[in-house]
Amino acid sequence: MQPLVQLRDVWVLRLSHRAQRDARVTTHVALVARAFGARGMYYSGDRDPGLEESVEKVCRTWGGDFKVAYVENPVRFVREWRRRGPVVHLTMYGIGIDEKAEELRSLEGPMLVVVGSEKVPRVYYDLATYNIAIGHQPHSEVAAIAIFLDRLYMGRELSLRFDDAMLEIVPCERGKLVRRRSRSANS
Amino acid sequence: MQPLVQLRDVWVLRLSHRAQRDARVTTHVALVARAFGARGMYYSGDRDPGLEESVEKVCRTWGGDFKVAYVENPVRFVREWRRRGPVVHLTMYGIGIDEKAEELRSLEGPMLVVVGSEKVPRVYYDLATYNIAIGHQPHSEVAAIAIFLDRLYMGRELSLRFDDAMLEIVPCERGKLVRRRSRSANS
Repeated sequence: MQPLVQLRDVWVLRLSHRAQRDARVTTHVALVARAFGARGMYYSGDRDPGLEESVEKVCRTWGGDFKVAYVENPVRFVREWRRRGPVVHLTMYGIGIDEKAEELRSLEGPMLVVVGSEKVPRVYYDLATYNIAIGHQPHSEVAAIAIFLDRLYMGRELSLRFDDAMLEIVPCERGKLVRRRSRSANS
Repeated sequence: MQPLVQLRDVWVLRLSHRAQRDARVTTHVALVARAFGARGMYYSGDRDPGLEESVEKVCRTWGGDFKVAYVENPVRFVREWRRRGPVVHLTMYGIGIDEKAEELRSLEGPMLVVVGSEKVPRVYYDLATYNIAIGHQPHSEVAAIAIFLDRLYMGRELSLRFDDAMLEIVPCERGKLVRRRSRSANS
């Protein structure tokens, strides 16, 4: 169940999910978090079983034990996390990632990476150990998570494999090549 | 009107936009393309004035002359682009970006980066100069564009500034600091 590349423990917290409006963007946040080596995604806002199911479905096919869990009170959740490890809030207003990447890589304890949907309440800027910008232009929390994890893991996340995957891609110049694997051994 | 960091000419083509389902994800694709240094985004599928307006609104505030344009016949568009420059199709089935990044950086002519929404027809795999994977796990075209441009521009895109921006962020450890600029000079 462990990914074949060992990466440090990172979890994502997605704030203020709105089941109607954010369904696909939050799913993308979760899939990027999984594909780029995070252990799971917590989310607050609307509880959304459809979101949880669609991420679980990806895990059943492509492997890994990425978790999705709902958080009732995200402020308290972040405050409690701070006792165990660093909290990094991604915001275009923060300090540029490349200025802090080395420091972030040296931190101990499980890391929580917080991304908002629309306006993030001030309390998160105060509670976060770091407010980090992925560039200072408005863009996307999906891209922000990807670049953040890429800097944290220094590109190693792109060779992530899950040894319990049912399907695995064989890279090719044109078209699609997929290998079906049994749960116990390679086919 | 020119960004203050000079980057090579890249355009994005977003295939099969569905105005209802993809509105926000396609907007994220466009905003990431702009923020990470691409010149503009073409899109096919449903024509969507709301999408175009929301990207234009970001440009008015944050600067630059990022273009969004609708393409009626994307297969013909890609075929014609090939006469002028390389076409890179981003797909989890392709060759890993880090294997090809140096080669891609050395190419000449304007580059078109193609991303799909759901299933991409086989013809694009054949027409593309390169089929490139951003990892071989399912995730998001938004993240794929971000990492692709980051590899192409070697991180310089994160310091992109637009000299005609009305607002500009001053990075800070906590909270939000925004500087209002006049169109002709810094304030």
